[in-house]
Amino acid sequence: MKTNPGRFFEDYKLGEVISHAVPRTVSGGERALYHALYPARGALYSSDEFARSCGLPQAPLDDLAAFHLVFGKTVPDISLNAVANLGYAEGRWLAPVYPGDTLAARSTVIGLKQNSNGKSGVVWVKTEGVNQRGEVVLSYVRWVMVRKRDLDAEAPMTTIPDLAPAVPASDLVVPEGLDFTGYDFTLAGEPHRWGDYEPGERIDHVDGVTVEEAEHMLATRLWQNTAKVHFDATFRPDGQRLIYGGHVISMARALSFNGLANAQMVVALNGGAHANPCFSGTTVKAWSEVLDRAETAAPGVGALRLRLVATSGGEPFTLKGEGGKYLPHVLLDLDYWVLVPR
Amino acid sequence: MKTNPGRFFEDYKLGEVISHAVPRTVSGGERALYHALYPARGALYSSDEFARSCGLPQAPLDDLAAFHLVFGKTVPDISLNAVANLGYAEGRWLAPVYPGDTLAARSTVIGLKQNSNGKSGVVWVKTEGVNQRGEVVLSYVRWVMVRKRDLDAEAPMTTIPDLAPAVPASDLVVPEGLDFTGYDFTLAGEPHRWGDYEPGERIDHVDGVTVEEAEHMLATRLWQNTAKVHFDATFRPDGQRLIYGGHVISMARALSFNGLANAQMVVALNGGAHANPCFSGTTVKAWSEVLDRAETAAPGVGALRLRLVATSGGEPFTLKGEGGKYLPHVLLDLDYWVLVPR
Amino acid sequence: MKTNPGRFFEDYKLGEVISHAVPRTVSGGERALYHALYPARGALYSSDEFARSCGLPQAPLDDLAAFHLVFGKTVPDISLNAVANLGYAEGRWLAPVYPGDTLAARSTVIGLKQNSNGKSGVVWVKTEGVNQRGEVVLSYVRWVMVRKRDLDAEAPMTTIPDLAPAVPASDLVVPEGLDFTGYDFTLAGEPHRWGDYEPGERIDHVDGVTVEEAEHMLATRLWQNTAKVHFDATFRPDGQRLIYGGHVISMARALSFNGLANAQMVVALNGGAHANPCFSGTTVKAWSEVLDRAETAAPGVGALRLRLVATSGGEPFTLKGEGGKYLPHVLLDLDYWVLVPR
Repeated sequence: MKTNPGRFFEDYKLGEVISHAVPRTVSGGERALYHALYPARGALYSSDEFARSCGLPQAPLDDLAAFHLVFGKTVPDISLNAVANLGYAEGRWLAPVYPGDTLAARSTVIGLKQNSNGKSGVVWVKTEGVNQRGEVVLSYVRWVMVRKRDLDAEAPMTTIPDLAPAVPASDLVVPEGLDFTGYDFTLAGEPHRWGDYEPGERIDHVDGVTVEEAEHMLATRLWQNTAKVHFDATFRPDGQRLIYGGHVISMARALSFNGLANAQMVVALNGGAHANPCFSGTTVKAWSEVLDRAETAAPGVGALRLRLVATSGGEPFTLKGEGGKYLPHVLLDLDYWVLVPR
Repeated sequence: MKTNPGRFFEDYKLGEVISHAVPRTVSGGERALYHALYPARGALYSSDEFARSCGLPQAPLDDLAAFHLVFGKTVPDISLNAVANLGYAEGRWLAPVYPGDTLAARSTVIGLKQNSNGKSGVVWVKTEGVNQRGEVVLSYVRWVMVRKRDLDAEAPMTTIPDLAPAVPASDLVVPEGLDFTGYDFTLAGEPHRWGDYEPGERIDHVDGVTVEEAEHMLATRLWQNTAKVHFDATFRPDGQRLIYGGHVISMARALSFNGLANAQMVVALNGGAHANPCFSGTTVKAWSEVLDRAETAAPGVGALRLRLVATSGGEPFTLKGEGGKYLPHVLLDLDYWVLVPR
Repeated sequence: MKTNPGRFFEDYKLGEVISHAVPRTVSGGERALYHALYPARGALYSSDEFARSCGLPQAPLDDLAAFHLVFGKTVPDISLNAVANLGYAEGRWLAPVYPGDTLAARSTVIGLKQNSNGKSGVVWVKTEGVNQRGEVVLSYVRWVMVRKRDLDAEAPMTTIPDLAPAVPASDLVVPEGLDFTGYDFTLAGEPHRWGDYEPGERIDHVDGVTVEEAEHMLATRLWQNTAKVHFDATFRPDGQRLIYGGHVISMARALSFNGLANAQMVVALNGGAHANPCFSGTTVKAWSEVLDRAETAAPGVGALRLRLVATSGGEPFTLKGEGGKYLPHVLLDLDYWVLVPR
């Protein structure tokens, strides 16, 4: 067998470091495609001039594009036989990615727990994206439920990692040189500063995008994510292609520009749930809730902790129903930190 | 309210200058996408070598792509509450846009007229696209009908700008250095020179492209045009997404290569009407009529004034029916100047 | 008539050299789009760093993208009135194409044979892609059946070129500097070396991609291939758009990564048949057969001759039925040479 059957639960060993294949160099092409695929309008990512006025050398690749690129590399080793993508934690963006940079990815197995049914187990990995200078540009923990190949394989010792419920504000990394003291709010699109957002405040982002098969496949392929379920209409019994959860994340984040135009740089992913599957034809909408606020040491730079909820419709600000279960129209519930001018 | 409700008729003041948000840096990525989205084959825009042989430093971004980028920036301020896009005039391209350039946009309100029903009014703006060196790269007048928020708001003094029916040939700006004396007609694709086109001549461009939802959304997003009606299938009662008029312009212009391969650089937009809406599934075809011819001072460079008509089928060269109304199959009637080797 | 009616059979003269129009400069944009359109993961084409570790200056444009670009240029002169694309032979890639390169194309008529019905004939051309330094980057023979315009036109003398059944291994051109002695199999995605592939071995590539109208049109336009049948849903009586055969080639080649991750550089096209037409909605799958193996003089570099079969389903490894006819689920049968680390 020369093709990759993917790893099964019993193939993961605690502490093992997996080097993922197919490093990727990004260019203005990936940046242009990100703008074609999502209604992304963050000025810092759209304009080299704006980025320079904020102390960066040029406009970086969207932080979520960097995340998708790294995530995509992990799929053949981590989630080819995954039954479910269970969660994210401790995601941190540590350095911007610029055109010309090459990203590779590696994951360390940090937790294992066989399910009581003996047929599958949960694998926790800490994944790092690394650029051509060996700098870790982002890092996150993800856990997935993976099937066993051999039901008789011995269960590993249960190890559940101790994960922070949210990245502490003191651990947020502000890109070197970032300075929002000369920030141009007119060019950025909205006047709202860090101090204008109150914890508890909720924003309906109003706009919606109806998603198409061609679009989510272009996006998912762009990140070299090869999970069959996104591309092969014959794979699921219902003939539907499941949209990559990251496509919904990027769509919702881009939609959140309307009300959060100055929420420029994503610096941490505290957690996230893909509450319900998303399919072609869905009109994705989004709302946000301000969860927390923090200062940073960088000039003019504050941080907001936000909940970003993507929906397929339904009333804005509705999230969970009886028993704490996500309502059927909720696609995504994401918890992240973002840098905002003060 | 942190989201942008858009401006209503009573929010515009004569003489006001509106700085539009989200400057944009273009790269080879936008150029490649333009070629993927439209059957564009103009040699000057396809090949750096060909552009250099015509005296330019490299292949510019398609002139219409530059127009779309600037237009897109104006949408949140000008046409979010527009009922109709009424017309264009006095459009002039003043300098080519190259990969690496950053475009911003500003609009001056040059006309206002409340409608007799008191519910809406017409707003005329002169929009300028500006590059990172502060050079105006293109300029055009556009007028739209905009709803009033408050029907009791006082009507402004009526001011209707005096607009030229067409940009005079003497006002056309030929890009610095452009020289068609060594123009390679074989590489460009057709032998027809400026002098081969006679005013009154009409050309059926023969080819057709059936448009898809994913394509027009990719294009419209690429220009950061966020009008809901292009993206959200739940927005219109009929569940259809209206295709951005500029997508039809670019499609028709690209189709016109077949017969106008040497109509290289768009230098003026004299006027234009989106005669009927366009939806996914339409097969767009195009025909042209030569309206005028002019010489320029640049070596080997002539100008043609052309009518470009996009249709959803129907007989070529049919345009208007009884009462001067556009026929149902006419999508676009555009009047522009283009530079052609002599 | 200013539009291009295409050439008919009687318009081709033996020995004639046709210079094709519209040279094209490629950038990171084309590279990014190739990754969005196909599940391409060859490390050498994905990462500048990986390419440098193999002795190249940076990651080249995918070899098939270079082929499509050259092929696209020939369409208006060779296949606008073609009834059928009959075959390929003697295809050789002679130098990699890098971002910044400009490609032009020319074809020499090397064979002519009028059909016995007197209504059409077969034209053989040798096409060369040439970069901005005048270097031939690829060369192939293709033959098509073309209609006659004038059934009374005299038949040309029949000349059938003598074509090699396969490019001899000794004629394969290894890119200058290519060195696989330090090849990183982990980063490339699979451990299988040249010596691990045995002639006769067959590999089912397992994955499948369901193709969409928007995708194949984006791809085909990107290569400036303008054949109506790919874009205009009103062109065929059944309202279907025929997918460009090259789209199927690239899709199948990208799918073949799973099992052939180290089959990095395509250096020869021995032959190929588009066995059945492909339409939107088809789920493309692929399998390969190892046909031959050869050594090269370059350090660590071996060559494999492979059959690549694209299907719309059906049993893997089934190809032809009674009478040697391709089975209905076979889309493509391609025979090529590829460079692999030893």
